[in-house]
Order: sequence, then C-alpha cells, then structure tokens
Amino acid sequence: KHIVLLPGDGIGQEVITSAQEVLNAVAEEFDHSFTFDTKDIGGSAVDLHGTPLPQDTVDACKNADAVLLGAVGGPKWDQLPSHLRPEKGLLGIRKELDLFANLRPIKGFPKLLHASPLKEHVVKGSDLLIVRELTGGLYFGTPSERRDNGHSVVDTLAYTRTEIERIVDKAFQCAQLRRKQLTSVDKANVLESSKLWREIVDEKSSQYPDVTVEHQLVDSAAMKLITNPTAFDVIVTENMFGDILSDEASVLTGSLGMLPSASLRSDNFGLYEPVHGSAPDIAGLGLANPLAMILSAALMLRYSFQLEDEAKLIEDAVQSVLDDGYHTSDLQLEGGQKLGTKEMTVQIVEYIK
Amino acid sequence: KHIVLLPGDGIGQEVITSAQEVLNAVAEEFDHSFTFDTKDIGGSAVDLHGTPLPQDTVDACKNADAVLLGAVGGPKWDQLPSHLRPEKGLLGIRKELDLFANLRPIKGFPKLLHASPLKEHVVKGSDLLIVRELTGGLYFGTPSERRDNGHSVVDTLAYTRTEIERIVDKAFQCAQLRRKQLTSVDKANVLESSKLWREIVDEKSSQYPDVTVEHQLVDSAAMKLITNPTAFDVIVTENMFGDILSDEASVLTGSLGMLPSASLRSDNFGLYEPVHGSAPDIAGLGLANPLAMILSAALMLRYSFQLEDEAKLIEDAVQSVLDDGYHTSDLQLEGGQKLGTKEMTVQIVEYIK
Ligand SMILES: CC(C)[C@H](C(=O)O)[C@@H](O)C(=O)O
Ligand SMILES: CC(C)[C@H](C(=O)O)[C@@H](O)C(=O)O
Repeated sequence: KHIVLLPGDGIGQEVITSAQEVLNAVAEEFDHSFTFDTKDIGGSAVDLHGTPLPQDTVDACKNADAVLLGAVGGPKWDQLPSHLRPEKGLLGIRKELDLFANLRPIKGFPKLLHASPLKEHVVKGSDLLIVRELTGGLYFGTPSERRDNGHSVVDTLAYTRTEIERIVDKAFQCAQLRRKQLTSVDKANVLESSKLWREIVDEKSSQYPDVTVEHQLVDSAAMKLITNPTAFDVIVTENMFGDILSDEASVLTGSLGMLPSASLRSDNFGLYEPVHGSAPDIAGLGLANPLAMILSAALMLRYSFQLEDEAKLIEDAVQSVLDDGYHTSDLQLEGGQKLGTKEMTVQIVEYIK
Repeated sequence: KHIVLLPGDGIGQEVITSAQEVLNAVAEEFDHSFTFDTKDIGGSAVDLHGTPLPQDTVDACKNADAVLLGAVGGPKWDQLPSHLRPEKGLLGIRKELDLFANLRPIKGFPKLLHASPLKEHVVKGSDLLIVRELTGGLYFGTPSERRDNGHSVVDTLAYTRTEIERIVDKAFQCAQLRRKQLTSVDKANVLESSKLWREIVDEKSSQYPDVTVEHQLVDSAAMKLITNPTAFDVIVTENMFGDILSDEASVLTGSLGMLPSASLRSDNFGLYEPVHGSAPDIAGLGLANPLAMILSAALMLRYSFQLEDEAKLIEDAVQSVLDDGYHTSDLQLEGGQKLGTKEMTVQIVEYIK
C-alpha cells in the first residue's frame, strides 16, 4: 500500500512522523508493506512553491492508496490573499480527490473526561459520529462573489440530488455498523436545500429498515449536543452545518487533541487528519500530542485498507498508554507522567510490538 | 404607548398574559399608560385565517410602538406546506417590520447555574450578548429553489454593504454600553460574504475606538462558547450563524426558560419574544415559565421606550423572586417552592407594587 504524507504546517511535521513510525511498527508485526512519499501542502507549500496546493501534490495523492495530512495554517500566512491561504490547499485537495464524506468519531476517554467543560454525568458515555458532506454546499457553491461594484456580496448553497444521496447513503451505512440511529440535521423550516435533503433522507430510509431516522433542526441540534450528547449515534449534515457542529462536538469530551477524522471518496480511498489545528505556538518544540494523528492512521487502516485488527490494535495501544498514566502536555492526568511527542510515540510503538 | 400582543401558539397565550399583567403593574406604579391590542400569528392564525401572517396583524404591528410575541409552532402544523408553516409568520413579520437586529442577552442566574450542563467554574460569570442579523443572509436570499426538474437545489447567502453596516453599527453601540469587547464571527477563510463582513467590521472599528474588536471563525466560536463562555462580551454575526450560535449559547447557563430577546428596527421600534418555543406538551396547563416573556417586556421598556428604571425594576423582581426560592416546573431550586404561571406572575407583580 502506498501512502502520501502531507505534513503541512506547525506541528503537522512532528505528528506525521509519529504516525509513520506507528504504521511501520504495524507493518512489521503483521507483515504488511507500506511505502511513503512526502509532499507539500498549506503554508509551507506557499513558501516553497508559491501555491498552497502544488499540482505535484495532487498528482501524488491521486496515485496513492491513502493520504495522511498533519495540519495546515498559521499566523505567518494569515494576511495573504485568499487564493494563497493555507486553507485553500485543504479545500482544494478535498475537491480534487472527491472526498465527499467527512467522518468524525467523537468518544470520550474515561480518564480524560475530567477535562471536559461538561459535567461528567452529562457527557459520560457519549459516543457519536458526525458525517459531514465535504465537497458541496455553502463552501463550494457558485456564484461566490462581490456585486454592484462591491456594494453587495453573494455566496451559494448548492447541491445536486446525487451529492446528497451519496452522503446520506454513507451515513446510513455508518449507522448500520453502530447503534443504528441516524439524526439528519437541516434547517428545513427555512431552506429549500434542507427540504430536498430531508426528502432524500426519508426516501433512502426504506433501504435501511434497521436504522431509526430522526430529523433535527440545526439550531436545536446545537443545543442538544451540549445538553444531551449521549442521545446521538450518527449525525449527517451539510458541509457548513457539519463544520460548526463537528467543531462544537469536538470539545465536549475534553480531549480535542485525541480526535481523528477521515475524508472518504466512494471507493474507500481517503485522506486522514487530526481534528486539531497546526498549533504554531508549540511547533518544533517536541510537545505536540501525536495521538489524534496516530488514531487517524488507524482510521486509514480500517476504512481504506480494511485492516480492522491492525486499526483496533492502534486504538488499544492509545487506550492502554492513557490507562498507564502517560499523557502529553495538552492533557491532564492526575498522578500521570508527561511525555513529549517522541516519547509518546515510543510508548505506542512498544505496545504494538 | 401602544403595544401589539401576538400570543401565537402553545404556551404563548399564557405567558403573554403574564407580561401584560406585569406591564399594567409597571404602568400603575410609574404613571404610564400602555394600551394593548391582540392579533393572530403562527399556527393559530393558520387555523383562523388560513395564513400564518394575516395582513391585519402586519398593519396593527406597523401602527404600534412595540410588539410582544409569545411563541409560534407545534406538531399540529408540522405537515403543512411550507408557506403555511407557523415559522413563516415569524420570518414574515421580521421582514415586514424590518427588524434587522436580533439581540439575545445570556447571563446566568447564580441560583440556577447548578442546572447548567457545564461545570460551574466554566460557566460562572458568563454574561454575553449575541447580536444576530435577522432579515438578510442565507435565510432570506434568492434564488432559493429547485432546479433541473428537482435534480438540484440552491439557497443564497446575500448581503448588501448597507445591511452589514447597520448590524455592525448596532453591535458596536451595544458593546459601548457593556464591557466594550466585540467578537465578530464569520467564515472569512471560505466565504466571500464573510470577507466583506470582516472588512466592514474593520472599517467601522475606527468609529468606535473604545471598543476592542476580535474576529473569530464560526467553527472556532462554536467551540469557545462551550470551553470559555466568559471570554465573550458582544458577538455579532450573520443570520444563520447567529441562529446556531445563539441557540447553542442559550443552553449554557441552564435556564433556557429565562432568556428574552429583542428584534429591533433602526428607530427603536422592536418585537420582543422569549427564546424558548411554544412547548405544546404543557400548553394550557398553567405550568409555563412566564419569566422569559416578562424579561422580554423589560427589554421592550429599555430599548423601545427608553424606560430604563422600569426595565431594571422588572429584572430586579425576577432576581428577587428566584432568590426567594420561587420557581416554575422547568427550573430546579433546592428547597424552593414550585409555582404555576399565574402564581409566578403574582409574585413579580407584588414585587413591583
Ligand atoms: C480550514 C477550513 C476551510 C476547514 C473547513 O471549514 O472545512 C476546517 O475548519 C475543517 O473543519 O476542516
Ligand atoms: C423558527 C425559525 C425560522 C427561527 C429562525 O431560525 O430564525 C427560530 O429558530 C429563531 O431562532 O428565532
């Protein structure tokens, strides 16, 4: 299997190295062969090539079996014109690779729940998966432009039926593998796109009779995620609603630094990245928490390579290392031992061997 | 001063009666004269007149000095075609009356914080105001329609410079009366409308040199509201972002049933309504919490009638009644005494007299 590594910016470089080491350990244990190629994206690509998404990077990804991405962005590039912003690299690669399904599993680690902003009895037991449409909707619709000499502006939330159908199918399939409960989030009391979304979810539901479906308005979902996060299993929603709700959900369990994500194409090809950002303040210091990146690599093994046992082993390793009291500086574990990026990676690798 | 009452649906009728009684008590104490006229809106207007927003209602509101609205909606009307949905009445009256500025103050009552889903040390001391643009953006833009024989769909997020300027001015002015800290929320790394929004906020900021301005991406604001709600003073944002964030924020303090809102035109005219919904499950039972509606009436006195002392007295009354341990069934107060809608209203009226 050939994997393209896109370290990107900030702590991206450090955490991607950790993931690579963990994958090498898995390869050795299970007798697989993973080959790697490293390419530029984001701010560092702007510095080196004058664009956040060089064609060479796109080509390499298209020829790979999967892609791991660290993080993009940082204050250094914040003032650049928008086509040179690191985020454009991220949006661009998603679109180029047709990664329409963004999966964000959010599950608390019991040992870390004490760091949650929520009361323990509220958040305990929450285990949800947000399925966000990633290549359509408000973030990609055209026109997106100034008009009337700059006196007005317009963005467009556009979907085709096919685009909605494929993400809804994906979400139903995810629900079938979990607790079989799907919450479709929209604003069908106002938006025409949400009405079509809701119709398609209802149409599709007959194909998945084992899955219970519920519709929820986005404003009410934003409330319920906080008041009753355990009520959710799988949430499926439009790109921008998904952006907001998944980030909201990411802080509920108190361990943002632990959350992986997968962005999938229809054929199992995928790009995997941690939910956290590039953390420029600690970049290069060897302090970054590599676990979200390592867990993203586990998702890659599961979704792109169908290596369930290998994925599970990595997840068990993370769990066990936390249980042993090891943590990075972004986490607090009473009586635990604080490790840097490299030492944490060594712990995971040792568990695997 | 002439006030139009729009009870609407569900518990709307009961809580609006409470507000009227409280306003009568204020009028008596301060020697004001308030006259009232009651009109239909929402589902009950559909039942009586075949439309959620009768012209007669619009006309009456246009001739009033302010409007109080209870709540609209309920399962009875959920299956109606979209032009007959109760929410259309609400969207319609906002647009007809040009109520572009939605103000939602969120402040915890110390006595009720224990009901918050957040840990007390996280939520304690939070006191924020969300200023949501209410008559533009994604909820009102055209086209909003099916295309290609129903195979695609489009909604539009549109703003004119003038629409953004007036809401941004409003938010700066609100910040000047508070802790002088403005957070403008957008998605300027993706949306063209957000870029214009951000430019206008930066332009305007020189007119309000006493106010500190910060820009925040909507996804990151959705996180920070939970992890650090005390970091915010005034938040200003687009209609849909505001819808999501204000509902998210409304559950932080554990007292959704206590939150008022104001929707203002440029000339101090306004519509005032509680943040909570029509609660069809308890409608007519005399159990509804009237305090959010009563606090909405206080906002009316403050913003539309410039009766600050009177507004403050109502707010003090609510605080004092809670301090005395009285509460409605949606709230929990240890060792407190549970009251129905009418008895709670009597307590407030007695404090005022
Ligand atoms: C960087 C940005 C464009 C991106 C998004 O909103 O899609 C990010 O916030 C994310 O959620 O992956
Ligand atoms: C009922 C609905 C149209 C409305 C809105 O989203 O504006 C409501 O959710 C609100 O926030 O006042």
